[in-house]
Amino acid sequence: MVIVTYDVNTETPQGKRRLRLVAKACVKFGQRVQNSVFECLVSPSDLLLLKNELNGIIDPEKDSLRFYNLGTKYSNRIDHIGKVRHLPEDEIMMV
Amino acid sequence: MVIVTYDVNTETPQGKRRLRLVAKACVKFGQRVQNSVFECLVSPSDLLLLKNELNGIIDPEKDSLRFYNLGTKYSNRIDHIGKVRHLPEDEIMMV
Repeated sequence: MVIVTYDVNTETPQGKRRLRLVAKACVKFGQRVQNSVFECLVSPSDLLLLKNELNGIIDPEKDSLRFYNLGTKYSNRIDHIGKVRHLPEDEIMMV
Repeated sequence: MVIVTYDVNTETPQGKRRLRLVAKACVKFGQRVQNSVFECLVSPSDLLLLKNELNGIIDPEKDSLRFYNLGTKYSNRIDHIGKVRHLPEDEIMMV
C-alpha cells in the first residue's frame, strides 16, 4: 500500500489544470481518501508507471508529491478520525 | 514516524478556525511537509496526546484526519518528487 499526497500550486489556470490531471492519474491507481491523499494498492511496476505519469504532469518548481510506502501489512498502520469520504457510486457498485 | 493528513471543511469561519487549530496542534509534534500533511516523530504516548487534541478540535461530521504509521525504519519508505517545502526561519535556526 502506497500513500500518495500532493500539493499543487493552483494560483494559475495552468496550476488548476495540473491539479485536475494529478487527481485523474491517481484515481486510476488508488482510492481517494482525502482531497489530496490517495491510497494505492499497486505493484512496484504500477507505482513506477504512476510516478512517471505524475512526473510528466507537475511543475517541479511549484508542486510537491510525496509517497509513503506502508508495505504489504498495512491495515494496522492506518487510523482514521472523523468524516469518511464516500465512494463514488460506480466504485460502490464494484465492492 | 507517523504521517498525519487532514481535510478540514473551510466553508464557514468556524471551519477556517478549525483548520488553523489543527495545523497549530500538528506543528507541536512534527514537520509540515505539505499544506495538509505532517510528518511526526512521536512516541506512542505523544501520538495519543496529539490524537486527543485533534479530536477536540475537528468537527467529526465535516472533517477527516488520517494517521499512517511508518514505524521506526521509515527512511526508505518515503519518496518525494518536486518542490520541497522550506522550513520557517525559526526552525532552520534550530537545526
